[in-house]
Amino acid sequence: MSGASPPHGYTHRKDDHLKRLRRIEGQVRGLQRMVDEDKYCIDVLTQVSAVTRALQSFSLELLEEHMSGCVVDAAARGGEEADAKIKEASQAIARLVRS
Amino acid sequence: MSGASPPHGYTHRKDDHLKRLRRIEGQVRGLQRMVDEDKYCIDVLTQVSAVTRALQSFSLELLEEHMSGCVVDAAARGGEEADAKIKEASQAIARLVRS
Amino acid sequence: MSGASPPHGYTHRKDDHLKRLRRIEGQVRGLQRMVDEDKYCIDVLTQVSAVTRALQSFSLELLEEHMSGCVVDAAARGGEEADAKIKEASQAIARLVRS
Amino acid sequence: MSGASPPHGYTHRKDDHLKRLRRIEGQVRGLQRMVDEDKYCIDVLTQVSAVTRALQSFSLELLEEHMSGCVVDAAARGGEEADAKIKEASQAIARLVRS
Repeated sequence: MSGASPPHGYTHRKDDHLKRLRRIEGQVRGLQRMVDEDKYCIDVLTQVSAVTRALQSFSLELLEEHMSGCVVDAAARGGEEADAKIKEASQAIARLVRS
Repeated sequence: MSGASPPHGYTHRKDDHLKRLRRIEGQVRGLQRMVDEDKYCIDVLTQVSAVTRALQSFSLELLEEHMSGCVVDAAARGGEEADAKIKEASQAIARLVRS
Repeated sequence: MSGASPPHGYTHRKDDHLKRLRRIEGQVRGLQRMVDEDKYCIDVLTQVSAVTRALQSFSLELLEEHMSGCVVDAAARGGEEADAKIKEASQAIARLVRS
Repeated sequence: MSGASPPHGYTHRKDDHLKRLRRIEGQVRGLQRMVDEDKYCIDVLTQVSAVTRALQSFSLELLEEHMSGCVVDAAARGGEEADAKIKEASQAIARLVRS
Protein backbone atom coordinates (compact mmCIF):
# COMPACT_ATOMS: atom_id res chain seq x y z
CA MET A 1 0.00 0.00 0.00
CA SER A 2 3.09 2.25 -0.35
CA GLY A 3 3.47 5.32 1.79
CA ALA A 4 -0.15 6.39 1.57
CA SER A 5 -2.25 5.82 4.62
CA PRO A 6 -4.71 2.95 4.22
CA PRO A 7 -8.11 4.10 2.97
CA HIS A 8 -10.27 2.50 5.60
CA GLY A 9 -10.07 1.82 9.29
CA TYR A 10 -9.98 -1.93 8.99
CA THR A 11 -6.86 -2.14 6.87
CA HIS A 12 -4.41 -2.41 9.74
CA ARG A 13 -6.17 -5.54 10.87
CA LYS A 14 -6.34 -6.94 7.36
CA ASP A 15 -4.26 -10.04 8.10
CA ASP A 16 -6.38 -10.83 11.10
CA HIS A 17 -9.58 -10.46 9.05
CA LEU A 18 -8.28 -12.61 6.22
CA LYS A 19 -7.26 -15.29 8.69
CA ARG A 20 -10.78 -15.31 10.16
CA LEU A 21 -12.43 -15.45 6.76
CA ARG A 22 -10.21 -18.33 5.69
CA ARG A 23 -11.22 -20.17 8.83
CA ILE A 24 -14.88 -19.51 7.98
CA GLU A 25 -14.24 -20.77 4.43
CA GLY A 26 -12.81 -23.94 6.00
CA GLN A 27 -15.93 -24.31 8.15
CA VAL A 28 -18.15 -24.02 5.05
CA ARG A 29 -16.09 -26.72 3.35
CA GLY A 30 -16.51 -28.79 6.50
CA LEU A 31 -20.28 -28.40 6.07
CA GLN A 32 -20.01 -29.73 2.51
CA ARG A 33 -18.11 -32.72 3.79
CA MET A 34 -20.76 -33.37 6.44
CA VAL A 35 -23.57 -33.23 3.87
CA ASP A 36 -21.56 -35.37 1.47
CA GLU A 37 -21.03 -38.02 4.16
CA ASP A 38 -24.73 -37.94 5.10
CA LYS A 39 -24.06 -36.72 8.61
CA TYR A 40 -27.05 -36.39 10.91
CA CYS A 41 -29.02 -33.18 10.13
CA ILE A 42 -28.93 -31.93 13.70
CA ASP A 43 -25.13 -32.08 13.68
CA VAL A 44 -25.06 -30.19 10.38
CA LEU A 45 -27.37 -27.56 11.87
CA THR A 46 -25.15 -27.16 14.93
CA GLN A 47 -22.22 -26.54 12.63
CA VAL A 48 -24.21 -24.00 10.56
CA SER A 49 -24.94 -22.09 13.79
CA ALA A 50 -21.21 -22.01 14.53
CA VAL A 51 -20.45 -20.53 11.09
CA THR A 52 -23.22 -17.95 11.50
CA ARG A 53 -21.81 -16.89 14.85
CA ALA A 54 -18.30 -16.63 13.38
CA LEU A 55 -19.62 -14.37 10.59
CA GLN A 56 -21.49 -12.31 13.16
CA SER A 57 -18.37 -11.77 15.26
CA PHE A 58 -16.47 -10.79 12.14
CA SER A 59 -19.05 -8.19 11.16
CA LEU A 60 -19.33 -6.78 14.68
CA GLU A 61 -15.57 -6.27 14.75
CA LEU A 62 -15.58 -4.71 11.30
CA LEU A 63 -18.38 -2.40 12.37
CA GLU A 64 -16.54 -1.28 15.51
CA GLU A 65 -13.46 -0.50 13.44
CA HIS A 66 -15.57 1.40 10.95
CA MET A 67 -17.13 3.46 13.72
CA SER A 68 -13.89 4.26 15.49
CA GLY A 69 -12.32 5.11 12.13
CA CYS A 70 -14.56 6.57 9.42
CA VAL A 71 -17.46 7.58 11.66
CA VAL A 72 -15.31 9.32 14.29
CA ASP A 73 -13.37 11.12 11.55
CA ALA A 74 -16.54 12.30 9.84
CA ALA A 75 -18.06 13.30 13.18
CA ALA A 76 -14.98 15.36 13.98
CA ARG A 77 -15.44 17.22 10.69
CA GLY A 78 -19.16 17.57 11.51
CA GLY A 79 -21.95 18.78 9.27
CA GLU A 80 -23.59 16.82 6.50
CA GLU A 81 -20.79 14.33 6.14
CA ALA A 82 -21.17 13.28 9.79
CA ASP A 83 -24.92 12.87 9.32
CA ALA A 84 -24.42 10.80 6.18
CA LYS A 85 -21.90 8.47 7.86
CA ILE A 86 -24.18 7.96 10.87
CA LYS A 87 -27.13 7.21 8.59
CA GLU A 88 -25.05 4.76 6.56
CA ALA A 89 -23.73 3.00 9.68
CA SER A 90 -27.25 2.80 11.15
CA GLN A 91 -28.53 1.13 8.00
CA ALA A 92 -25.69 -1.39 8.11
CA ILE A 93 -26.52 -2.11 11.76
CA ALA A 94 -30.20 -2.60 10.88
CA ARG A 95 -29.21 -5.13 8.19
CA LEU A 96 -27.05 -7.00 10.72
CA VAL A 97 -29.77 -7.01 13.38
CA ARG A 98 -32.39 -8.23 10.90
CA SER A 99 -30.26 -10.88 9.19
CA MET B 1 -32.40 24.72 22.95
CA SER B 2 -32.68 27.27 25.78
CA GLY B 3 -30.95 26.84 29.12
CA ALA B 4 -31.85 23.33 30.19
CA SER B 5 -30.73 21.24 27.23
CA PRO B 6 -32.18 17.76 27.35
CA PRO B 7 -29.66 15.24 28.66
CA HIS B 8 -29.74 12.81 25.76
CA GLY B 9 -30.31 12.87 22.06
CA TYR B 10 -33.53 10.94 22.14
CA THR B 11 -35.42 13.35 24.35
CA HIS B 12 -36.90 15.44 21.56
CA ARG B 13 -38.58 12.32 20.21
CA LYS B 14 -39.77 11.27 23.64
CA ASP B 15 -43.48 11.45 22.83
CA ASP B 16 -42.96 9.39 19.72
CA HIS B 17 -41.02 6.75 21.69
CA LEU B 18 -43.61 6.61 24.45
CA LYS B 19 -46.36 6.18 21.87
CA ARG B 20 -44.50 3.24 20.32
CA LEU B 21 -43.83 1.61 23.66
CA ARG B 22 -47.49 1.95 24.65
CA ARG B 23 -48.44 0.26 21.39
CA ILE B 24 -45.98 -2.55 22.18
CA GLU B 25 -47.49 -2.84 25.67
CA GLY B 26 -50.90 -3.20 24.00
CA GLN B 27 -49.52 -5.94 21.75
CA VAL B 28 -48.21 -7.83 24.79
CA ARG B 29 -51.63 -7.56 26.43
CA GLY B 30 -53.09 -8.84 23.16
CA LEU B 31 -50.80 -11.88 23.51
CA GLN B 32 -52.16 -12.51 27.00
CA ARG B 33 -55.68 -12.39 25.63
CA MET B 34 -54.76 -14.87 22.87
CA VAL B 35 -53.25 -17.31 25.37
CA ASP B 36 -56.20 -16.83 27.73
CA GLU B 37 -58.64 -17.62 24.92
CA ASP B 38 -56.62 -20.70 23.88
CA LYS B 39 -55.82 -19.32 20.45
CA TYR B 40 -53.91 -21.58 18.08
CA CYS B 41 -50.17 -21.62 18.97
CA ILE B 42 -49.04 -20.72 15.47
CA ASP B 43 -51.17 -17.57 15.59
CA VAL B 44 -49.69 -16.67 18.98
CA LEU B 45 -46.19 -17.21 17.57
CA THR B 46 -46.93 -14.96 14.58
CA GLN B 47 -48.00 -12.25 16.99
CA VAL B 48 -44.86 -12.71 19.12
CA SER B 49 -42.75 -12.20 15.98
CA ALA B 50 -44.62 -8.95 15.35
CA VAL B 51 -43.85 -7.69 18.87
CA THR B 52 -40.20 -8.68 18.52
CA ARG B 53 -39.94 -6.76 15.26
CA ALA B 54 -41.60 -3.70 16.84
CA LEU B 55 -39.06 -3.78 19.69
CA GLN B 56 -36.26 -4.18 17.18
CA SER B 57 -37.38 -1.14 15.19
CA PHE B 58 -37.62 0.84 18.40
CA SER B 59 -34.09 -0.05 19.43
CA LEU B 60 -32.64 0.62 15.98
CA GLU B 61 -34.19 4.10 16.04
CA LEU B 62 -32.95 4.75 19.56
CA LEU B 63 -29.49 3.62 18.53
CA GLU B 64 -29.41 5.91 15.50
CA GLU B 65 -30.42 8.85 17.68
CA HIS B 66 -27.75 7.93 20.20
CA MET B 67 -25.11 7.81 17.50
CA SER B 68 -26.09 11.09 15.84
CA GLY B 69 -26.27 12.68 19.30
CA CYS B 70 -23.93 11.40 22.00
CA VAL B 71 -21.49 9.56 19.75
CA VAL B 72 -21.06 12.44 17.27
CA ASP B 73 -20.62 14.90 20.16
CA ALA B 74 -18.01 12.72 21.82
CA ALA B 75 -16.27 12.12 18.49
CA ALA B 76 -16.12 15.88 17.89
CA ARG B 77 -14.38 16.27 21.26
CA GLY B 78 -12.14 13.32 20.35
CA GLY B 79 -9.67 11.48 22.53
CA GLU B 80 -10.53 8.92 25.16
CA GLU B 81 -14.14 9.98 25.49
CA ALA B 82 -14.74 9.30 21.78
CA ASP B 83 -13.14 5.87 22.12
CA ALA B 84 -15.24 5.07 25.17
CA LYS B 85 -18.50 6.08 23.45
CA ILE B 86 -17.69 4.00 20.37
CA LYS B 87 -16.82 1.01 22.53
CA GLU B 88 -20.05 1.40 24.51
CA ALA B 89 -22.16 1.76 21.34
CA SER B 90 -20.45 -1.27 19.77
CA GLN B 91 -21.27 -3.39 22.79
CA ALA B 92 -24.91 -2.28 22.65
CA ILE B 93 -24.99 -3.20 18.94
CA ALA B 94 -23.51 -6.63 19.70
CA ARG B 95 -26.24 -7.22 22.30
CA LEU B 96 -28.89 -6.25 19.73
CA VAL B 97 -27.42 -8.44 17.01
CA ARG B 98 -27.14 -11.43 19.35
CA SER B 99 -30.56 -11.09 20.99
CA MET C 1 -62.95 -25.51 29.94
CA SER C 2 -65.48 -28.11 31.17
CA GLY C 3 -64.87 -31.77 30.57
CA ALA C 4 -63.54 -31.38 27.04
CA SER C 5 -59.80 -31.76 26.58
CA PRO C 6 -58.02 -28.47 25.92
CA PRO C 7 -57.80 -27.65 22.22
CA HIS C 8 -54.07 -27.01 22.01
CA GLY C 9 -50.94 -28.37 23.57
CA TYR C 10 -50.04 -25.23 25.41
CA THR C 11 -53.20 -24.96 27.45
CA HIS C 12 -51.97 -26.94 30.41
CA ARG C 13 -49.19 -24.43 30.86
CA LYS C 14 -51.54 -21.50 30.40
CA ASP C 15 -50.96 -20.02 33.85
CA ASP C 16 -47.23 -20.20 33.39
CA HIS C 17 -47.48 -18.46 29.99
CA LEU C 18 -49.74 -15.74 31.33
CA LYS C 19 -47.34 -15.12 34.20
CA ARG C 20 -44.46 -14.72 31.76
CA LEU C 21 -46.41 -12.41 29.50
CA ARG C 22 -47.43 -10.25 32.45
CA ARG C 23 -43.78 -9.99 33.45
CA ILE C 24 -42.93 -8.95 29.87
CA GLU C 25 -45.72 -6.37 30.00
CA GLY C 26 -44.14 -5.03 33.21
CA GLN C 27 -40.77 -4.82 31.45
CA VAL C 28 -42.32 -2.81 28.61
CA ARG C 29 -43.86 -0.43 31.15
CA GLY C 30 -40.42 -0.20 32.75
CA LEU C 31 -39.08 0.89 29.34
CA GLN C 32 -41.70 3.64 29.20
CA ARG C 33 -40.61 4.84 32.63
CA MET C 34 -36.97 4.88 31.53
CA VAL C 35 -37.77 6.94 28.42
CA ASP C 36 -40.01 9.23 30.45
CA GLU C 37 -37.23 9.86 32.97
CA ASP C 38 -34.69 10.49 30.17
CA LYS C 39 -32.54 7.53 31.14
CA TYR C 40 -29.34 7.05 29.17
CA CYS C 41 -30.04 5.49 25.75
CA ILE C 42 -27.57 2.66 26.22
CA ASP C 43 -29.35 1.60 29.40
CA VAL C 44 -32.69 1.70 27.58
CA LEU C 45 -31.19 -0.44 24.78
CA THR C 46 -29.87 -2.98 27.29
CA GLN C 47 -33.37 -3.27 28.72
CA VAL C 48 -34.91 -3.66 25.23
CA SER C 49 -32.52 -6.58 24.60
CA ALA C 50 -33.73 -8.19 27.83
CA VAL C 51 -37.38 -7.91 26.72
CA THR C 52 -36.54 -9.32 23.29
CA ARG C 53 -34.81 -12.29 24.88
CA ALA C 54 -37.79 -12.88 27.20
CA LEU C 55 -40.14 -12.90 24.19
CA GLN C 56 -37.80 -15.24 22.37
CA SER C 57 -37.75 -17.72 25.26
CA PHE C 58 -41.53 -17.56 25.43
CA SER C 59 -41.91 -18.34 21.73
CA LEU C 60 -39.34 -21.16 21.83
CA GLU C 61 -41.25 -22.77 24.66
CA LEU C 62 -44.57 -22.31 22.89
CA LEU C 63 -43.09 -23.84 19.76
CA GLU C 64 -41.75 -26.87 21.60
CA GLU C 65 -45.17 -27.46 23.15
CA HIS C 66 -46.79 -27.08 19.74
CA MET C 67 -44.44 -29.63 18.24
CA SER C 68 -44.80 -32.19 21.02
CA GLY C 69 -48.57 -31.69 20.91
CA CYS C 70 -50.15 -30.80 17.56
CA VAL C 71 -47.25 -31.83 15.33
CA VAL C 72 -46.70 -35.22 16.98
CA ASP C 73 -50.46 -35.93 16.88
CA ALA C 74 -50.69 -35.01 13.20
CA ALA C 75 -47.54 -37.02 12.43
CA ALA C 76 -49.03 -40.05 14.15
CA ARG C 77 -52.09 -39.75 11.90
CA GLY C 78 -49.76 -39.27 8.92
CA GLY C 79 -50.61 -38.27 5.39
CA GLU C 80 -51.46 -34.78 4.23
CA GLU C 81 -52.31 -33.47 7.66
CA ALA C 82 -48.82 -34.33 8.92
CA ASP C 83 -47.27 -32.58 5.92
CA ALA C 84 -49.41 -29.50 6.46
CA LYS C 85 -48.50 -29.26 10.16
CA ILE C 86 -44.79 -29.61 9.42
CA LYS C 87 -45.00 -26.95 6.73
CA GLU C 88 -46.88 -24.62 9.06
CA ALA C 89 -44.41 -25.15 11.92
CA SER C 90 -41.46 -24.62 9.56
CA GLN C 91 -42.88 -21.30 8.44
CA ALA C 92 -43.36 -20.20 12.06
CA ILE C 93 -39.74 -21.19 12.77
CA ALA C 94 -38.54 -19.19 9.77
CA ARG C 95 -40.41 -16.13 11.06
CA LEU C 96 -38.78 -16.56 14.48
CA VAL C 97 -35.30 -17.02 13.03
CA ARG C 98 -35.68 -13.98 10.79
CA SER C 99 -37.25 -11.66 13.35
CA MET D 1 -24.98 -46.14 -0.34
CA SER D 2 -26.03 -49.34 -2.14
CA GLY D 3 -29.66 -50.35 -2.22
CA ALA D 4 -30.36 -49.26 1.35
CA SER D 5 -32.55 -46.23 1.82
CA PRO D 6 -30.60 -43.12 2.72
CA PRO D 7 -30.17 -42.66 6.47
CA HIS D 8 -31.53 -39.14 6.75
CA GLY D 9 -34.28 -37.09 5.18
CA TYR D 10 -32.00 -34.61 3.52
CA THR D 11 -30.06 -37.08 1.44
CA HIS D 12 -32.29 -36.93 -1.59
CA ARG D 13 -31.59 -33.22 -1.84
CA LYS D 14 -27.89 -33.71 -1.30
CA ASP D 15 -26.84 -32.27 -4.65
CA ASP D 16 -28.97 -29.22 -4.10
CA HIS D 17 -27.45 -28.68 -0.64
CA LEU D 18 -23.91 -29.13 -1.89
CA LYS D 19 -24.56 -26.62 -4.66
CA ARG D 20 -25.80 -24.07 -2.14
CA LEU D 21 -22.86 -24.64 0.19
CA ARG D 22 -20.41 -24.25 -2.68
CA ARG D 23 -22.08 -20.95 -3.55
CA ILE D 24 -21.72 -19.86 0.09
CA GLU D 25 -18.06 -20.89 0.00
CA GLY D 26 -17.68 -18.70 -3.10
CA GLN D 27 -19.30 -15.79 -1.25
CA VAL D 28 -16.85 -16.20 1.65
CA ARG D 29 -13.96 -16.16 -0.81
CA GLY D 30 -15.52 -13.03 -2.31
CA LEU D 31 -15.37 -11.47 1.18
CA GLN D 32 -11.67 -12.29 1.39
CA ARG D 33 -11.12 -10.57 -1.95
CA MET D 34 -13.03 -7.50 -0.75
CA VAL D 35 -10.95 -7.25 2.42
CA ASP D 36 -7.76 -7.89 0.46
CA GLU D 37 -8.62 -5.06 -1.96
CA ASP D 38 -9.48 -2.70 0.94
CA LYS D 39 -13.10 -2.37 -0.10
CA TYR D 40 -15.25 0.01 1.91
CA CYS D 41 -16.29 -1.55 5.25
CA ILE D 42 -19.98 -0.89 4.71
CA ASP D 43 -19.87 -2.83 1.43
CA VAL D 44 -18.09 -5.70 3.16
CA LEU D 45 -20.77 -5.67 5.89
CA THR D 46 -23.56 -5.76 3.30
CA GLN D 47 -21.94 -8.82 1.78
CA VAL D 48 -21.56 -10.49 5.18
CA SER D 49 -25.31 -10.01 5.75
CA ALA D 50 -25.95 -11.73 2.41
CA VAL D 51 -23.84 -14.74 3.43
CA THR D 52 -25.56 -14.92 6.81
CA ARG D 53 -28.96 -14.94 5.13
CA ALA D 54 -27.85 -17.66 2.70
CA LEU D 55 -26.70 -19.82 5.64
CA GLN D 56 -29.97 -19.13 7.41
CA SER D 57 -32.03 -20.24 4.40
CA PHE D 58 -29.91 -23.36 4.13
CA SER D 59 -30.48 -24.28 7.77
CA LEU D 60 -34.21 -23.56 7.62
CA GLU D 61 -34.52 -25.90 4.65
CA LEU D 62 -32.45 -28.57 6.35
CA LEU D 63 -34.60 -28.25 9.44
CA GLU D 64 -37.83 -28.61 7.50
CA GLU D 65 -36.49 -31.75 5.83
CA HIS D 66 -35.43 -33.10 9.19
CA MET D 67 -38.87 -32.49 10.64
CA SER D 68 -40.79 -34.00 7.73
CA GLY D 69 -38.39 -36.96 7.77
CA CYS D 70 -36.90 -38.02 11.11
CA VAL D 71 -39.34 -36.18 13.36
CA VAL D 72 -42.48 -37.40 11.57
CA ASP D 73 -41.12 -40.97 11.53
CA ALA D 74 -40.33 -40.87 15.24
CA ALA D 75 -43.69 -39.27 16.00
CA ALA D 76 -45.45 -42.04 14.07
CA ARG D 77 -43.65 -44.59 16.26
CA GLY D 78 -44.55 -42.50 19.32
CA GLY D 79 -43.35 -42.88 22.90
CA GLU D 80 -39.98 -41.85 24.20
CA GLU D 81 -38.31 -41.73 20.81
CA ALA D 82 -40.84 -39.13 19.61
CA ASP D 83 -40.24 -37.05 22.73
CA ALA D 84 -36.48 -37.26 22.28
CA LYS D 85 -36.64 -36.19 18.61
CA ILE D 86 -38.90 -33.23 19.43
CA LYS D 87 -36.59 -32.15 22.25
CA GLU D 88 -33.56 -32.43 19.98
CA ALA D 89 -35.24 -30.48 17.17
CA SER D 90 -36.38 -27.80 19.63
CA GLN D 91 -32.85 -27.33 20.88
CA ALA D 92 -31.56 -26.99 17.31
CA ILE D 93 -34.27 -24.37 16.64
CA ALA D 94 -33.28 -22.46 19.79
CA ARG D 95 -29.65 -22.40 18.59
CA LEU D 96 -30.79 -21.07 15.19
CA VAL D 97 -33.02 -18.42 16.72
CA ARG D 98 -30.30 -17.26 19.11
CA SER D 99 -27.42 -17.26 16.61
